[in-house]
Amino acid sequence: MNPSSRFRFRAPVRVRFIETDLQGVVSHAHFFAYFEAARMDYWEAVGFPLEKLRTLGADDSIVAAEATYRSPARFYDLLDVHVRTSHLGRTSYKVDFLVTRGEAPEVIAEGRTIHVIVDLHTRRPIPIPEPFRAALEAFEGEALQAGDGG
Amino acid sequence: MNPSSRFRFRAPVRVRFIETDLQGVVSHAHFFAYFEAARMDYWEAVGFPLEKLRTLGADDSIVAAEATYRSPARFYDLLDVHVRTSHLGRTSYKVDFLVTRGEAPEVIAEGRTIHVIVDLHTRRPIPIPEPFRAALEAFEGEALQAGDGG
Amino acid sequence: MNPSSRFRFRAPVRVRFIETDLQGVVSHAHFFAYFEAARMDYWEAVGFPLEKLRTLGADDSIVAAEATYRSPARFYDLLDVHVRTSHLGRTSYKVDFLVTRGEAPEVIAEGRTIHVIVDLHTRRPIPIPEPFRAALEAFEGEALQAGDGG
Amino acid sequence: MNPSSRFRFRAPVRVRFIETDLQGVVSHAHFFAYFEAARMDYWEAVGFPLEKLRTLGADDSIVAAEATYRSPARFYDLLDVHVRTSHLGRTSYKVDFLVTRGEAPEVIAEGRTIHVIVDLHTRRPIPIPEPFRAALEAFEGEALQAGDGG
Repeated sequence: MNPSSRFRFRAPVRVRFIETDLQGVVSHAHFFAYFEAARMDYWEAVGFPLEKLRTLGADDSIVAAEATYRSPARFYDLLDVHVRTSHLGRTSYKVDFLVTRGEAPEVIAEGRTIHVIVDLHTRRPIPIPEPFRAALEAFEGEALQAGDGG
Repeated sequence: MNPSSRFRFRAPVRVRFIETDLQGVVSHAHFFAYFEAARMDYWEAVGFPLEKLRTLGADDSIVAAEATYRSPARFYDLLDVHVRTSHLGRTSYKVDFLVTRGEAPEVIAEGRTIHVIVDLHTRRPIPIPEPFRAALEAFEGEALQAGDGG
Repeated sequence: MNPSSRFRFRAPVRVRFIETDLQGVVSHAHFFAYFEAARMDYWEAVGFPLEKLRTLGADDSIVAAEATYRSPARFYDLLDVHVRTSHLGRTSYKVDFLVTRGEAPEVIAEGRTIHVIVDLHTRRPIPIPEPFRAALEAFEGEALQAGDGG
Repeated sequence: MNPSSRFRFRAPVRVRFIETDLQGVVSHAHFFAYFEAARMDYWEAVGFPLEKLRTLGADDSIVAAEATYRSPARFYDLLDVHVRTSHLGRTSYKVDFLVTRGEAPEVIAEGRTIHVIVDLHTRRPIPIPEPFRAALEAFEGEALQAGDGG
């Protein structure tokens, strides 16, 4: 099975010159910037950009992040960063990422970030706002409702 | 027990303005740059800077990276990034990180990177060069020899 | 006159979260990364990507860079970075940039980089390779041939 | 004359691995991050960190930035970023930078940023707060009072 088949969303990311390092490949830390950029596009597609969360008095806070690097990305590669919400808890949720080079099946990297929704002002965890939860569930469908990926 | 007591090395990192984001804190991806900067200082202290590895025809390749965020870091904070090699395998090894704010016991973040030593030219995994292994074992002492942290 | 009318090329750049700072706007240094990313797209449009220059034994080296900031860029803004070669000398050339927010006439920033073509191995200045010069002249047309922007 | 002799302040900056690019040198945009990091240390030395400006209801805004690159910086170089205020106007001021490699006379890069002091809330230009002006004048002495560098 193509590993990207579990994802309903992907964002293109063009590798910048400044993101390469003296080994001639994309430095590992930049993948977390790629994940974040793609997540923002994903939320836009889901109909719930960060701004909307903030107008509800909530904010997003990342509590953990991880990546596994399978194959190097190089200058000017046009990457696809696949994004999906893989778990929705009460105050926290998980987002999974898969990086490929366009349609090629080869996996460049995989990743996951774990998030907590916090009060915009106190920065303390609060339950995931219902409209945000509903938007994610509507977009992801059954896969997410099954609690997959926890 | 102070969580930093397991570490024999720490590098100071001053938070740059450009590393803050609109939430007023250090953006999560920058911690991987902090880990890397501190690891380079650690290798210097160990007596085995990256350059030395490369003159042996070997290179370092990161295959996985993770971080857990406990408390936000802010502009101009003077962080301590504690570094230790927590596992030495045949071709791979692990490096653990702990970020504190100077002497304060509060943990800002924790992290780990998993590395593979590769041939400088073919980029294929090769056994960890003996002089690099010996330098890490000499620096870390018993804790590392016990295979702790695998 | 719309300031972008002198440009025949523009590349879209989406502002990333990590590029904002605690003032809530894009940190000034990131504009140089935007300029560079857009220049690489420009060279692709011109038919002369960096890789082609390097296969000719030449490389690009930036000797000066400047930017003027007119209005802040914010998170998730979709910027247009307009690019043009404004001067072609014997070994050096200049590239001008203009950043707008999509079709809006407001100028976010302007910039210029001055480049020298160097030998890929010795890193010493060499005459601009003729195929690169011809490609830039063909793309820019009369405006460039008039020596405008020197 | 040693070009750094006009500067009364310098901040050390260690080149990070992530700041190198596939040409094996520090990518040009990172110098603006170095300038900024060194300027924050300079303001600390002057006795007027950014925080103090903000408690006065003022903020710093960069309106222009430029750099000239003389010689490449490489991985793990320990750079000195020399900083001085070169001009103080009514609402704006200029900061000059010089980058050397430790005590070596060779110049790696030079730069300048032009700043405007703005109201923290309206973001409109306001006169430079007197305590900030006085602190800069006291630190720089006669060279600044002569209006040098305008």
